[in-house]
Amino acid sequence: MKTDPESHQRMTQRRKEGFEKKLAAADQEKGLLIVNTGSGKGKTTAAFGMAVRVLGHGMKLGVVQFIKGALHTAERDFLGSAAHCDFVTMGDGYTWNTQDRDADMATARKGWESAARMILSGDYQMVVLDELNIVLKYEYLSIDEVLDVFSRRPAMLHVVVTGRHAPDKLIEAADLVTEMRLVKHPYREQHVKAQRGVEF
Amino acid sequence: MKTDPESHQRMTQRRKEGFEKKLAAADQEKGLLIVNTGSGKGKTTAAFGMAVRVLGHGMKLGVVQFIKGALHTAERDFLGSAAHCDFVTMGDGYTWNTQDRDADMATARKGWESAARMILSGDYQMVVLDELNIVLKYEYLSIDEVLDVFSRRPAMLHVVVTGRHAPDKLIEAADLVTEMRLVKHPYREQHVKAQRGVEF
Repeated sequence: MKTDPESHQRMTQRRKEGFEKKLAAADQEKGLLIVNTGSGKGKTTAAFGMAVRVLGHGMKLGVVQFIKGALHTAERDFLGSAAHCDFVTMGDGYTWNTQDRDADMATARKGWESAARMILSGDYQMVVLDELNIVLKYEYLSIDEVLDVFSRRPAMLHVVVTGRHAPDKLIEAADLVTEMRLVKHPYREQHVKAQRGVEF
Repeated sequence: MKTDPESHQRMTQRRKEGFEKKLAAADQEKGLLIVNTGSGKGKTTAAFGMAVRVLGHGMKLGVVQFIKGALHTAERDFLGSAAHCDFVTMGDGYTWNTQDRDADMATARKGWESAARMILSGDYQMVVLDELNIVLKYEYLSIDEVLDVFSRRPAMLHVVVTGRHAPDKLIEAADLVTEMRLVKHPYREQHVKAQRGVEF
């Protein structure tokens, strides 16, 4: 990658032109349906990183945490204290903690009612639905019902859905889908436990 | 995935046991070297999502943005206003904006000096080095010099490195590596432009 100054300048000039051409072609603005899935880390944290951008711009953010409400509180403590953020936590920890499908379905339904209200209200610029994919995978909610609400959202509202196992229908409907892929994980290889600031 | 209550309970019971077994085996705590790479979205936002957790716990965070300091300010505005966060932005936008390799190298060096100071100070629980991978790929900094500082960091300090093209040596040294893989992107398919709250 080391180059002389002239060829470096030619390379950066070409790259700049390519970038500007792409920029000129991209002239649409719209609320995006964004999905972070895959078995790697970073699905939820990437959503909260966008949430930080939204709040940094003074835009209004809604968050519904579907599954791990009982576990992850640091992001709620920090983001939830922002003036432009409404944060709803549902769920009694992971599903294996309740071992009761009916109770889980009722919790999912309650979370979805909050989510649908936020999405259709017109009050928000971004709504994050953390771990909704898990709820859909277990069929605690119907994907068709969820997609119907998404399709009726305000034109400029961004919706961010996280969790493993995003359903095919959701990926089809989405504008932006990222798979977080595990390359190396200290849990397995080094017996490192979940740590404050990283996992929760 | 629909099951009767009994088999649902057996399934969740098994899952709970597996989870608890893994938990018991994982008894180590250590500062992790975390790398978010790949050509998909979410590398920087996932780092800032962890940053939110760190700040939510009242832990101290350091951030050095190596490349896009001139572009992305929303996260700096929001996180940088937190009492426990030191935020340093370097870089004159992307490299193709300067078209001057010597200037880029000097900027990288200055950013790295701040980063090394934070890492070795003992004052932080997490240091985020945003887009350091790009700087390493262009050989604006030597990977050996960077790894040497990482290896001398306090035992409980988490370091998070983002950017495409993480060097092999960095991946080898890292504890936790995630590849963000693009599945679907609205830039290309729908000519959607970079939008407030999502890309910046």
